[in-house]
Amino acid sequence: MDFLSLFITDFVMQLRSPTLAFLIGGMLIAALGSELVIPESICTIIVFMLLMKIGLTGGIAIRNSSLTEMVLPMIFAIMVGILVVFIARFTLAKLPKVKVVDAIATGGLFGAVSGSTMAAGLTVLEEQNIQYEAWAGALYPFMDIPALVAAIVVANIYLNKKKRKEAAYSMAQPVAAGSMAQPVAAGDYPDQKGYPSNRQEYLSQQQGDGENRVKIWPIIEESLRGSALSAMLLGLALGLFTRPESVYEGFYDPAFRGLLSILMLVMGMEAWSRIGELRKVAQWYVVYSVIAPFAHGLLAFGLGLIAHYTTGFSLGGVVILAVIAASSSDISGPPTLRAGIPSANPSAYIGASTAVGTPIAIGVCIPFFVGLAQAIGGLPPTP
Amino acid sequence: MDFLSLFITDFVMQLRSPTLAFLIGGMLIAALGSELVIPESICTIIVFMLLMKIGLTGGIAIRNSSLTEMVLPMIFAIMVGILVVFIARFTLAKLPKVKVVDAIATGGLFGAVSGSTMAAGLTVLEEQNIQYEAWAGALYPFMDIPALVAAIVVANIYLNKKKRKEAAYSMAQPVAAGSMAQPVAAGDYPDQKGYPSNRQEYLSQQQGDGENRVKIWPIIEESLRGSALSAMLLGLALGLFTRPESVYEGFYDPAFRGLLSILMLVMGMEAWSRIGELRKVAQWYVVYSVIAPFAHGLLAFGLGLIAHYTTGFSLGGVVILAVIAASSSDISGPPTLRAGIPSANPSAYIGASTAVGTPIAIGVCIPFFVGLAQAIGGLPPTP
Amino acid sequence: MDFLSLFITDFVMQLRSPTLAFLIGGMLIAALGSELVIPESICTIIVFMLLMKIGLTGGIAIRNSSLTEMVLPMIFAIMVGILVVFIARFTLAKLPKVKVVDAIATGGLFGAVSGSTMAAGLTVLEEQNIQYEAWAGALYPFMDIPALVAAIVVANIYLNKKKRKEAAYSMAQPVAAGSMAQPVAAGDYPDQKGYPSNRQEYLSQQQGDGENRVKIWPIIEESLRGSALSAMLLGLALGLFTRPESVYEGFYDPAFRGLLSILMLVMGMEAWSRIGELRKVAQWYVVYSVIAPFAHGLLAFGLGLIAHYTTGFSLGGVVILAVIAASSSDISGPPTLRAGIPSANPSAYIGASTAVGTPIAIGVCIPFFVGLAQAIGGLPPTP
Repeated sequence: MDFLSLFITDFVMQLRSPTLAFLIGGMLIAALGSELVIPESICTIIVFMLLMKIGLTGGIAIRNSSLTEMVLPMIFAIMVGILVVFIARFTLAKLPKVKVVDAIATGGLFGAVSGSTMAAGLTVLEEQNIQYEAWAGALYPFMDIPALVAAIVVANIYLNKKKRKEAAYSMAQPVAAGSMAQPVAAGDYPDQKGYPSNRQEYLSQQQGDGENRVKIWPIIEESLRGSALSAMLLGLALGLFTRPESVYEGFYDPAFRGLLSILMLVMGMEAWSRIGELRKVAQWYVVYSVIAPFAHGLLAFGLGLIAHYTTGFSLGGVVILAVIAASSSDISGPPTLRAGIPSANPSAYIGASTAVGTPIAIGVCIPFFVGLAQAIGGLPPTP
Repeated sequence: MDFLSLFITDFVMQLRSPTLAFLIGGMLIAALGSELVIPESICTIIVFMLLMKIGLTGGIAIRNSSLTEMVLPMIFAIMVGILVVFIARFTLAKLPKVKVVDAIATGGLFGAVSGSTMAAGLTVLEEQNIQYEAWAGALYPFMDIPALVAAIVVANIYLNKKKRKEAAYSMAQPVAAGSMAQPVAAGDYPDQKGYPSNRQEYLSQQQGDGENRVKIWPIIEESLRGSALSAMLLGLALGLFTRPESVYEGFYDPAFRGLLSILMLVMGMEAWSRIGELRKVAQWYVVYSVIAPFAHGLLAFGLGLIAHYTTGFSLGGVVILAVIAASSSDISGPPTLRAGIPSANPSAYIGASTAVGTPIAIGVCIPFFVGLAQAIGGLPPTP
Repeated sequence: MDFLSLFITDFVMQLRSPTLAFLIGGMLIAALGSELVIPESICTIIVFMLLMKIGLTGGIAIRNSSLTEMVLPMIFAIMVGILVVFIARFTLAKLPKVKVVDAIATGGLFGAVSGSTMAAGLTVLEEQNIQYEAWAGALYPFMDIPALVAAIVVANIYLNKKKRKEAAYSMAQPVAAGSMAQPVAAGDYPDQKGYPSNRQEYLSQQQGDGENRVKIWPIIEESLRGSALSAMLLGLALGLFTRPESVYEGFYDPAFRGLLSILMLVMGMEAWSRIGELRKVAQWYVVYSVIAPFAHGLLAFGLGLIAHYTTGFSLGGVVILAVIAASSSDISGPPTLRAGIPSANPSAYIGASTAVGTPIAIGVCIPFFVGLAQAIGGLPPTP
């Protein structure tokens, strides 16, 4: 069977898998104006249970396996998380009508990971009977946190540079500078760059310097404290250090697919309802949100293949690495970014991620990367 | 074993089935003043899961069977839905102290279908090991929508006729008509019936005509968009066009009975707490609510038997047709009726349905029709 | 194998059981500042399902067994419930800076039973493969209600005595009594103890007498109507009189451990967040909350052993009796006490119970009593 036909057959067939079908169904009924509402508290507990299950799976898996095989995929996950931010900085941010801080924040959100998208990816792999390392879900924080940290650091460095330039500019033209509330006192040295001409400016510069030294640890701490990551890491710890097999096998594992189907429905409806937000921001966000999941996923897929051929990382694991790279954060990312880059416009990054990025990642990228892995591995698609 | 003893034994035994026992239990603890509360969001998700499961069952069943055997039961479902409204129009509406619009709205609600009652019916059939067509749940919208449409159309035709009569009456006695704000100008023709005597009346008559042409499609559309029907139809579509068997068998199907037991408890408590509302309306609503579920159910049972003897529709299927006819809508019906017949008094139709109609339909009609089917089919009741 | 080593091995191993591990995990992530929140409505339905399951288990068990073997454990449960209140009255209440009413209310709460703690105890017994009577969970109300009734009665008797003393004191020094608004009229008899000197005092004394005659039935009624007990008793009734086996085996039983794990997590987080409340009250509450679960548990364990050696009550049953004695009420107790002893300070008894009593009871007493039973019975701990 040739590569292309194998890939296409598989792609189409996956759209009928329950996970993707519920996502598309959610978009459909939202488009048709359905009044169906899944209560907020139900979505919260579903996300908790999915991430707890992924954490438990990972913890139990790590307990029973060697950590060394995790090293290379972990490093690749960190790399992808950071690279995605720089990709946004040097592509999206350069486009017309796109503010640089908004672009960096969007890059951070697309580098961060969506637990729901990852859960969908794991489920589709199981539905297609493709093997993967049970600890693969534990790669989540290794891509998620570096992306958010990188975005906040890059944004602050940019904002600081901009401020300095403006300050320098205003100092060079002290008379014209209408932004300076107090008239410059006699004896100032406008030719002496960077030197504060008065107390006010000195203070703002100090603050600027303060912002420049972005503290990385509080960002990491805030990410870890977020409800999504703390549920997953608690699961990981419980899986590692205790014996949760009875609740795992009797509760978290069997409920996983069903709960995911409800969440997919909600995400489909949510994506449709967020489309309106995109009209308010530059059209380039839509273009970015369509291309980015593929670009990031392919980058991770390529790195994953290196691990596949060198350390025997499974093709299923490569798909998971690609899927978490393709995903964009929906729960933990937005609040962290809002706190870290307050000057960025949330409707730019949230609209792009929820309305376009996530449906593309789940509905198109998951089948695409699964198909790619099956075509590379020569695996026939399961009917 | 003779018909009556078979019927009575079976009836009593069914009251101990979990589904009915939880309903009675709910009424009991509400009567005893229990402070137990099941959160609203839990009820919402339970109703969603039950209707999604019924939809999936139907969709998977239709995919694997021929549509032709569905035709006759479908037609009967539509007939019953419409007939129920006319029965209310020519019985309940004629009773003293009962407003005609309230009676028509009540008829619409009793013609419409309760997903929970249907779920209870399906579960009792399974508990009694009685076979039924898996697509039988899909008859729901074919009775539900015609009933709501018929009620709204009939109510508007009535209101319009009434208005015309009043207008004609006020024109016949133009001087006495205190309701006319502007004195009638000279040169009016009170003998010329229906002709607008002044601009104001002309406008109101135009509006009346506008109301007379009740648009049917928006009512259907609103019914389909309601949370109950859209969950069920989405399930139907997913069952038909995708492969949801894994989540169906691993999640929606096994959780069905348990979730239903919680919902039955809530409905029992709700029924008890709504009894107070009935005191505010005419006592005839109580009489109607007791008799109507039997009358409608027997009508549907009779039509179902025709399908049984002609096209081989199962006796279990006949029971389901009778149960959905006996049921009255609790979720989707009220808002549609409130929007479609705003002049009707909601506490008349909601009180009658929730406090009396539903408990009678579930607690008495389900065992009654199951017993009837077992007695007709000569099936021994399962212990 | 000697007693102590058997006991210690078992104690440590149980901390890795999912039930206790989730409790400790909850405290841990709360201490680390996690933003994880389990919605209120989810906790409500989990508690309902756990108590419904315990009730159903008990009801089905009682239906299939003789009631006579329940008599002795029931009497012991009632005894422990009442004794715990008197222990608090004569220990905690005597300590410095501790108000007597607060101490009695705290005793009532520690005598009352926590459904979640009992559920955790039952689950740990199952995890350790220790047999117990299926009706043991039905001992709950026999300890819970007597404790609450005793606390309210004892508190009211105390308050009434105090009032009389104060009244007597104020009458003995009528001139100095600034609290008396009206000046005492001439002709009063201060030597005539207990005789009302004026109308105002007479009225207050009448009220005092009214309070003295504490009505016991309304307290019992309120306890039974509480959401926790009414869910459990409904389950008991359904188990006894109907046939709920299908929903029990397909829904309530399999979901039990998983739902409990979520609740344990919530209780761990709640315990941590309540620690702050303890700073506001006397330190003796902390000392009491640490010692009381052991003292009450050991008392019940001792009585349980009498039943074990005389009527063959299982060692697992003895552990359950000890665990419900060690537990302190978290749901039904506080509102009943607040209504029954309005002058007691809720942050004294709720803080002591939730922040210290419950974690000690679940995390330390359950492993302790299980270990004790295994050491006594010579049962090897299950790995």
